[in-house]
Formats: sequence, C-alpha cells, structure tokens
Amino acid sequence: MAIKVDFRSDTVTKPTPEMRSAMMSARVGDDVFGEDETVNELESKLAVMFNMEAGLFCPSGTMTNQIAIKCFTQPMDEVICDQTSHVYRYEGGGIAYHSMASVRLLYGERGILTPELIEPEINEDNIHYPNSTLVVLENTVNKGGGIAYTLDQIEPIHTLCNIKGLKLHLDGARIFNALVATGDHAKDYGKYFDGISICLSKGLGAPVGSVLLGSKETINKARKIRKAFGGGMRQAGFLAAAGIYALDHHIARLAADHRHAAALAEALGQVNYVSSVMPVQTNIVLFDVAAGFRANDIVHHLAEKGIACNTTGPNTIRMVTHLDVSSEMIDMAIENIIHLHPTAHK
Amino acid sequence: MAIKVDFRSDTVTKPTPEMRSAMMSARVGDDVFGEDETVNELESKLAVMFNMEAGLFCPSGTMTNQIAIKCFTQPMDEVICDQTSHVYRYEGGGIAYHSMASVRLLYGERGILTPELIEPEINEDNIHYPNSTLVVLENTVNKGGGIAYTLDQIEPIHTLCNIKGLKLHLDGARIFNALVATGDHAKDYGKYFDGISICLSKGLGAPVGSVLLGSKETINKARKIRKAFGGGMRQAGFLAAAGIYALDHHIARLAADHRHAAALAEALGQVNYVSSVMPVQTNIVLFDVAAGFRANDIVHHLAEKGIACNTTGPNTIRMVTHLDVSSEMIDMAIENIIHLHPTAHK
Amino acid sequence: MAIKVDFRSDTVTKPTPEMRSAMMSARVGDDVFGEDETVNELESKLAVMFNMEAGLFCPSGTMTNQIAIKCFTQPMDEVICDQTSHVYRYEGGGIAYHSMASVRLLYGERGILTPELIEPEINEDNIHYPNSTLVVLENTVNKGGGIAYTLDQIEPIHTLCNIKGLKLHLDGARIFNALVATGDHAKDYGKYFDGISICLSKGLGAPVGSVLLGSKETINKARKIRKAFGGGMRQAGFLAAAGIYALDHHIARLAADHRHAAALAEALGQVNYVSSVMPVQTNIVLFDVAAGFRANDIVHHLAEKGIACNTTGPNTIRMVTHLDVSSEMIDMAIENIIHLHPTAHK
Amino acid sequence: MAIKVDFRSDTVTKPTPEMRSAMMSARVGDDVFGEDETVNELESKLAVMFNMEAGLFCPSGTMTNQIAIKCFTQPMDEVICDQTSHVYRYEGGGIAYHSMASVRLLYGERGILTPELIEPEINEDNIHYPNSTLVVLENTVNKGGGIAYTLDQIEPIHTLCNIKGLKLHLDGARIFNALVATGDHAKDYGKYFDGISICLSKGLGAPVGSVLLGSKETINKARKIRKAFGGGMRQAGFLAAAGIYALDHHIARLAADHRHAAALAEALGQVNYVSSVMPVQTNIVLFDVAAGFRANDIVHHLAEKGIACNTTGPNTIRMVTHLDVSSEMIDMAIENIIHLHPTAHK
Repeated sequence: MAIKVDFRSDTVTKPTPEMRSAMMSARVGDDVFGEDETVNELESKLAVMFNMEAGLFCPSGTMTNQIAIKCFTQPMDEVICDQTSHVYRYEGGGIAYHSMASVRLLYGERGILTPELIEPEINEDNIHYPNSTLVVLENTVNKGGGIAYTLDQIEPIHTLCNIKGLKLHLDGARIFNALVATGDHAKDYGKYFDGISICLSKGLGAPVGSVLLGSKETINKARKIRKAFGGGMRQAGFLAAAGIYALDHHIARLAADHRHAAALAEALGQVNYVSSVMPVQTNIVLFDVAAGFRANDIVHHLAEKGIACNTTGPNTIRMVTHLDVSSEMIDMAIENIIHLHPTAHK
Repeated sequence: MAIKVDFRSDTVTKPTPEMRSAMMSARVGDDVFGEDETVNELESKLAVMFNMEAGLFCPSGTMTNQIAIKCFTQPMDEVICDQTSHVYRYEGGGIAYHSMASVRLLYGERGILTPELIEPEINEDNIHYPNSTLVVLENTVNKGGGIAYTLDQIEPIHTLCNIKGLKLHLDGARIFNALVATGDHAKDYGKYFDGISICLSKGLGAPVGSVLLGSKETINKARKIRKAFGGGMRQAGFLAAAGIYALDHHIARLAADHRHAAALAEALGQVNYVSSVMPVQTNIVLFDVAAGFRANDIVHHLAEKGIACNTTGPNTIRMVTHLDVSSEMIDMAIENIIHLHPTAHK
Repeated sequence: MAIKVDFRSDTVTKPTPEMRSAMMSARVGDDVFGEDETVNELESKLAVMFNMEAGLFCPSGTMTNQIAIKCFTQPMDEVICDQTSHVYRYEGGGIAYHSMASVRLLYGERGILTPELIEPEINEDNIHYPNSTLVVLENTVNKGGGIAYTLDQIEPIHTLCNIKGLKLHLDGARIFNALVATGDHAKDYGKYFDGISICLSKGLGAPVGSVLLGSKETINKARKIRKAFGGGMRQAGFLAAAGIYALDHHIARLAADHRHAAALAEALGQVNYVSSVMPVQTNIVLFDVAAGFRANDIVHHLAEKGIACNTTGPNTIRMVTHLDVSSEMIDMAIENIIHLHPTAHK
Repeated sequence: MAIKVDFRSDTVTKPTPEMRSAMMSARVGDDVFGEDETVNELESKLAVMFNMEAGLFCPSGTMTNQIAIKCFTQPMDEVICDQTSHVYRYEGGGIAYHSMASVRLLYGERGILTPELIEPEINEDNIHYPNSTLVVLENTVNKGGGIAYTLDQIEPIHTLCNIKGLKLHLDGARIFNALVATGDHAKDYGKYFDGISICLSKGLGAPVGSVLLGSKETINKARKIRKAFGGGMRQAGFLAAAGIYALDHHIARLAADHRHAAALAEALGQVNYVSSVMPVQTNIVLFDVAAGFRANDIVHHLAEKGIACNTTGPNTIRMVTHLDVSSEMIDMAIENIIHLHPTAHK
C-alpha cells in the first residue's frame, strides 16, 4: 500500500514549489572561502533572530550538535543531559566518539531538566571524576512527546551553569515548535545559551541543514571543526535558500501541525487498543498500546490503510505532524484510527 | 590526631615484613623484553588459577579495566554496565577517552545486573545507535556495599552475551573477597569471561598492580595497548613478587576482614546517628546517617578518635576492612562508634 | 577589482543553467531512510562506472576520505601516504582526530608513490610500533601539480598491499582529470582499491558533494560513520541531481581545461618573474617565482587585472582551470601574464 | 649462549645491592591519596634539581611523554618533532591515539632541531590546517646515536616557541647523559621547557619509572590524566626509593659509560665488516655494516660470543653502555669485535 499520510517524522517533507523556486534562483559561491551570499544571509538572519553573534550552516542537526559539544568540552570532560536526549541516544555515540567526553544521564519528567536535578550531578574536583563542563537541553523534547521548555524553566538552569562554570547548549531541533507553543520569543534565547542548534529540515520543511549559533569565538572554532568533519560544502546556497524561505513563510503555520496532533491524540484516546496518550503540546503524538495488543501490529494495520508511523518501543508508537500533512489527511487518518479493529492477543 | 585505624580503603595496606622480604629477593629482568621471570610467574599463576590462557601485569586496576574495554570495543560501540560501576564512575571518564565508546547505564539492585536488565538495552542494528559490544560486571560491587555475584548469577549473563555476540568483562577488583564469601572457585570463572581484571593492591595487600586475564589473542593485543598507555615497566618483578606472596598467603585471611566488617555493621546498627546499614557480605560497610546528622560531621568526630573513614555522599559513609585492620582495632573502633555522641542539627 | 577569471580552485564553479534545471526537477526523499531516488541513482551510477559494489553520497571529499580512513583503520594503526597528501595536509588533522591513527609520510617524486617507497615503511609486528594497515593515494596529485597515476603504476602498489594485508584507498578528488589525461578506464579501477572517494564539486562542476565507493560491507559501515559525522542529509537529491548531470555532460570537456592549463604554463615559462613551471598534465599549473620576486606580489598584481590565483608557499603560485574558465578568459589571462612587469626586489 | 655483556639497551640494568637495600627500607603510603612519602620526595627532588615547580612519578617514560603531549595539546592540534623521535616512532602511535593530534615531522641533522627548521613548519591560521601548538625535543637523541643538545642550542628554540605561542616539551629519556657530556646544569633547564620527562630506568639504573616535571598547573592536570591512564600506583615508594638512590649515586658514573662507548666505537672503526660509526658523544654506538655483510648476521655472530646487541635497520646495529657493563666486559667485547671474521656475501 502506498503511503497516503506520513507520520513517521517531520524530516520527510519535500520542498513546496515556492521553496524550490527560491532554491533555484539562489545566488551561490564557494562557502569554504566564505563567498556564498545565500549561506551568509541565512547564518546572519538566524543569529539576529536569536540575538546571538554568529551562525554556521551545516548538513545536519547531528553535526551542529556534535560540533557544539566538541567546542564546549575537552576529552575526559563530562556532559550532563537527559537520558532520552537525541545527542546521547540517536547520534551514533557521537559524544564519546567526537569529544571523548563522558555522559551523566538524568531522568527528567518527560525529559525536562531542572536545576534541582542537575546540581547534585556536577562532579566535584577529584582525580577520579571527569570534569563536568556542559549541560545540553533539547527543546522540544522529542522522546518526551514534543513537550516544550519555557524560558522561565531555562533561566534558572542558565543561572546554575553560570555559577558552576558550565556551558549550556540547546539542541533546538524543534525550537520553532516550542516558540509557537509557548509564545516565548526567539530573541530572548541568546542570553541563556552558549550554543543553539536549529534544524531547517524538520517542521520548517527545508530539505537539508541545520545552523549552529554562538559567539563569534565559538563559531570560528566551530568552522574549523566543521572542516575536519567534512561539513564544509561548496555552493551550499541552494540549500540555504530553502532555509531562508522557510523562516519567512513556514513558522506561523506550525500552529496547524499542533492542532492536527491534538486531534490525532483525541481520537487515539477513544480507541480500545490504546492505553494512554502522552498529553500533546506540539507536533508529536506518543501513545502506548493496550495490554493484549502489540505496537508492531498496530503499525502494520495502519500501513495497510496508507498511514505510516513508527514504534519507539515494544508498546509505544509515535506520530509526527508536519508541512506535508494536510487537514484532509488528518481527517482520513482519524477515520481509520477510529475504525481500526486490531485483534487482541491473549 | 594520628590515624589509629584506617577504614578509608583496602588500598592503604603496607606490605608485611615477609612480603617485603619476598619483594627484595625477587629475580627481575626487563619485562618490556618479556625477561622478568617474576612477572612471568605471576601472570601464569593467575591465568592457571582462573583457567584462562594468559595474563598481563599492569600498574593498576584502572589500567587493566581500560585496556580490556579497549580490546573488546571499537570507537562508536556501546558498553553496558551498572551506573555505579567503577569503570564508569571512578576511572576519569576512561571509557569515552580511551575507547571512544558510549555507555548504556543500568540500575541493578545494589549494582547487581541480570539478563532481564541487560537484554532490552542491547541496541538493534540501526545507523542512529552505537553498536552494543561489551557488558562489564564488577565483583564484588563496591558501591553496592561489597555485595558479591555468585557464579549462578553470572552464568545466564554469559549465555545472553554469547547469544547476542557481546563480550563479557569482569572488573575483579575484589574478586577474592567474592570467592571467599560465596565459596565459588576461581577455576570456574575462566569459561564465563572474555577478560578478568584482578587487583593485587586491595584485599590482597600487595603494594601495586593488577593482572588482566584473557585468551592469548586478547593478551597479545592488550600488551600492545599497554605499551601505548605507558604501562610497560622494566624490572617490575619487585612488584610482582608481592603479588605472588599475597596469592600464597593472603586469600584465606579475607574471611577475617569479612567478620570485622560484620561486627562494625552490627555496632553501627545500634547507634542513634545511623539510620540504616547496608547488609554486609564482604569487607565493605556502607551506612546512612540519621536525619538531623551530617556524614561529614560523623567522619570528623571519628577522625578525632583516630578512626579514618570517608563519606560517599552527603548522608553516606563507607568503612573498609583489610590486612592492616586487626581485631583489636575493630574492638577499639566499635567502642568509639558506640560512645560517640554527635549533636543532631535541627 | 572584480574577479574576471578565477584560477584559485576548481571548486569555485557555479552550476550551469542546464545543471540548475536538472537540480530543480529532481525527485527527492528522506535519504536517512534511504528514500531519496536521486541520491540512490547517483550512488549506483558511480559504483557501476568504477566497477565497485556500492556508493555513499557525502557533503564533501574531506568527509568521504576521512570516513574511508576510519573504515579501514583502528586507533593505534598507521596510514602510509605521501607527505603532500590532501588527507594529511588539508583535512584539519583528521587522520589523527577521527581515526586516532598515526601517519607514515613518504616523499614521492611529485607525490607519486611506488612499491619501492612503500614497502620499507610498513612496520613489522612489534609492540612499540603502530600497525600499518592502510595506504592512501591521491589521483591526480594536487601538490604534485596535477600529475596523474596510471593504472600501470597503481597495479603493483595494489599487489604489495594485498601481500602485506594493507587496504588501499584512493582520494579521487580529481580522478576524472586523471582518466581523461591517461586514457585509463574508470571500470578498471574497482579491482585495485578498497575505497575510492570521488569529488563532484571540482572539475565536474557540481555545487556540493563527493561519493565514496567500496564493497557493500564497507559502505554499510561507512553509512553508519556518516551518521555520526552528521553527514546524513535529508532531501539531498537536489545536490545528487547536479552530480548525475555532471557525470553525463562534464567529463569529456575536462580535456579543454587541460589544454587551457598547458597554454597558461607555456606563457608563464616565457616571463622573467617565473623561474620554473612544473610540467602540466591536467588542470593545475604550479610555478615558482624567480629570485628577487615574491609570490604574494605577483598574486597582487594579477588581482589588479582581475585574475585571481593563490600562493601555495612563499615562492610558489597555483592556477587551476575549470568549467568557468573559457578560452577567451585564458587568452585574456595570458595577455596579462606576458605584459605584467613586476618590480624585482634587490 | 648465555649473555655475558648486554648492549641491547640501558633499560636492562638490575638494581645494585645498595639500591635494593634502599628500596627495601623505603617508607611507603597510598600515592593515589598523595601519602607516599618516598614518591613525594623523589618528585620534589627532581623538581628542585631542574628548577621546575612540581613533579609526577609515572610507570614509564612513554607515559610521562604521552601525558605531557596530552597536557599541551587538544584534538586537531599539531605536534612538531624530528621524524626519528621516540614519541613518534616508538610509543605505539600514542600522539594520535591519546592526543588526537597530528604530527609535523622534521629532518634534523642526527635528529637535532633548530629554529630554522621549525619556523617554516608552524601552520598559519587556516581552517584546513591543524593548529601547531607543541614542539618536542629529545635529549640525547637516541636515533641520532646519542648526540646531545646543548642549552645554547635549546635557548633559541625556546625563544621561537615563546614568540609563536607554542609549548616546548623535552623527552629527557637520557637527559643525565646529556648533562654529563655537555657540562650543562640541570637547574638551567627549567626556564626553557614547559614539560620535561626524566627516565630513571635507563642510565640511572633504577628498575622502573619516569618523572614528569612542569608548572604546578601542568602537574595537577597531568595527575588527573595519569589517573585515567591507569598510571596511579598505590605504595609506589619502593620504586621511587630506587630513583632517589640513583640520583644520589649514579649520575657522575655515566662518564664511564661514555668512555666505554667511545672505546667500542674506536674498535668498530677498525674492522672490515663495519663501514661507518656515528661519532660517539654519550653511551650509544650506532654503526653501519659494510657492503656484503648483513646486520642480522653480525648480531648473530656476536651473540655466539655472549655479546648481545640489536639491529636498528637492515644495515645498522646499536650498542648501548650502562651500569651493568663493566670495563672488563668492554675489554672482552672489543677483543671479540676485533677478532670476529664474518663471511661477506657476494
């Protein structure tokens, strides 16, 4: 069965005709020489937006995150993050590989960290322990069902890091979903973070790329690391143009994705094969299947109806809404979800 | 106040006159050329004892553990261990630094792992995840209050690792305490582990060193890694002689250390400033101070009586018995523990 | 003065209208899920062309090279390459950083290695030495003035590597220049190399990217490493489409670049401020300035005429011809080169 | 044939009865807690001697060198050293493995570097290049036939490093041989180096160990790295006592080793199977075998007479004099060298 609606991830979006058009008319140059005007424009635009000094365009959010962690740590340091963090779980063991840094894993409620959780896990100075030097937050929290930090929650974490001499990095893979959901302003983020990684290829709908924001000094260091990673691209302005277009046209519409996710969650809350749905705040719906059912079976049944989604555990399924999911597709999906009658196992 | 009895660690022991004598009459040679007879003898003796093919003498247990982890992993692999493990907590972030390997941390009861805990944490093959390639156990579990694994507990973990293609390493920092406590036999260990690290400088009372056991292939690889670590020593036979002496004379007496620890625990169970004592199985006593008291204060009060011990957390104190703690010292310590009257804080 | 002809590098080319059009109409998908048809097509096309099993599209030649080196080595191994190699000189220290591998540097004539140079530098098995496990060749040799290896030169190196158990990787940044110059066939390369890295953004004129070729096993491993490097892009088909277009339309025309370079070299051989020009075989012209002149001054004087090029040392200048340098531009450049009268310093 | 005189290395010496006695009566403690008085005394004694702030005792010179390199570099930095350097050639690829640093290899006359050789190899600031941050010298130069740097040669290198912001480390594996040969004073070394590694197990005749000297800040950092390397030993005072004894009794006598080496060289200069002998300044004799002879054969013939030495290349042999080589043994060796009549191959 061909996919009619694709809830697997917000990374699957394809550029709209307008975005393609913006890409194809881009002015480009050799970005390794700093001569791609469109890349330069994208980097500046995001830096201004988030009130930080400089930006660096990279092929992926994994690269912006891993470069930031390398910038802010040395081998034998320790990174503090939630145990569900993308940087720890889904980036190929990159913290240990690229930065030779240890991790201290916290168990935040839905992945949300607090100063009270962080403080006791900062190592004292002792030759047996790695040096605690960096805290990483993720906003929204993917594995926390798309829950968003507010700036009110971030501020005291920033204060603690400041007092203790730790750097603070934000994996902002879905930062615009967080901004739309909380009403916080991008320009207020700059003062709280040493680094922010912003993905263009998720909710924003651009095909490729992520931008790392930081101080000029950080970004100079990051630019050198990007070269060693092989992330320095030549005429990358085609990709950057899509990012600029998305920032100009695709932010406000994230509210629709959030409404769609809420509608899906409501439907899922009513069927017998779902035991619980994590409260939906943005574009991610995480739900557990009821006893007697298997997540794999449900995914299979939905696929037969043309509805694609993934398990995230033996009993858990994730659905993500995005630019390529219309209201009509949501209606179709809900219809199917409600009328699905999977057989329970004894 | 001078230290009269030192419960800080079983690493503080000084060689007995007989051990010094064995050291000073050692036949030595250049071990980098494989010509130190005493080192060779120690390595063989332990390999035979644990029914493994070969051994490698190193300056510390941190080195034998870290070399083993390097032998059994590649960068971007993942090591599965308890979150209290020495290899993760107290070896300077070595897993990430030396092996560029990620960690998956489990929460065993008193640090004891089971196949049920391990199996769901083995990563499936997916480009986002590190490869799970190694499980590390610690016997006895230091942070678990000296609790010992039995071979009956180890066997199914070995089976799981075998099926899943993972290696299994034992941090045997206090393996002889475990053997004495459980009645298991050293010679039965060889078939369950790919690597075993055995410390000579803890309960055994030797001044320096640890031996890594494994297959000939593993030890050849380990010998090369030891060279790069700078762990290749020249006339190391002086140290190895102490290890041989300890293996011949200091194993059975560990039972006395265990009785001493039990006696301490009993006394601690009766005083008002202690809220709970972890059940004692070997030579480690871990206890929590009661509400209103502070671990640091108690340690300070005991130090004034000549009794040295350390906190292991804001409310937790550890006492370790060993070769240099006599029955008379235990009696003295108990007397002081019982008559200590620290002031409670409101 | 605006740049009228840009000899700085063959990386500065901008897509032609036809290439842009091919990009704009590309069918794309999420390549991290393996669903980008255009990327898949590019990878297959090159694999078939070079008679290897599989390909992997990456953002840059630095990444394909560094991933290949990581695939073929382990920490504490040693890579054998010429001391001018791009992988050693211009990739940010990546061999040590990404692969923790040592280098053995050879001094080939114009960077061309031979079995006679390589064999004595393969380490014997000894705990003091890194393991020699990989030889890297570069074709054409950038710092050797664009000189090309023939397959006749490569075959005995392959044989030596085979006998000694070493892998052989080709940095094919300008492999198509080599093929056009030597008349060798791409399909004959597959049997000699374990990995080949092919740049699309140099002579081929595509905006971004490089493809790593190897066995299926190597490419599976490489795909996982690419993810950790952050080189996994989403809808990368826009870039891949340019690569496919270039392979279909821009190979034969490299002969024109070679003629242009030869014409430049001839002119440079006639002026008093140039002491020697390295014989030109492909699209790179390397020349030394005569005593009394400074490379920086010459570059500056040329820039005033709108001719951009770079120094590669205090007395050396490099000019590179490419898709965006027309015959008219060459005529203009030669005119200016001949009539330039820089002042000699005493 | 048993070895009667062992010229393979100055690492093969065994402690004298007086040194053993000093070891046996050593006061020891747990050095990981900083409580081993003898280790502390050795570290202070050498720091004072070389006019540096602090010292750190380690199991080997490989470890002190590699820890120093880690202290003075970060991943993606570049270390400048002679291509014959022990740190590059004989430490298992440690620079890349432990420090993830690249190397820039120079070709000094007999391994002796000069500011003129170093300066052009310091990388300019460019994203393609590693950062040049450290120069390493070796004194005496092992592969240069034991040739010594004088302080007059070191001073301008120090000045260059200072101006360019590079650190300067000394691999002083045989620094006392250099001091005895040049008449320079240890106390004048402190101002020129950021780190000095001093071996106790070579000419000094102690069984095990090396001390790293540096500023307090450097040594604090080094102590933490030593812990992660597994180089933190417990009651290491037994080994340190031998080092103290050697510093008090075995320095002046190195002059005898140098006379012995000179006598060997003179004899070797007279026989037909030797083509050239490198001029001898300290305790190392390096000579080439004449055409028609093979180094392996000569070594074999000498071994049959009880004289042990090693080849260092297909045509090169090394002999090293030391504490366990008496004048009588030298006479015996010379007698045999002169009367050896190896058969030449056609």
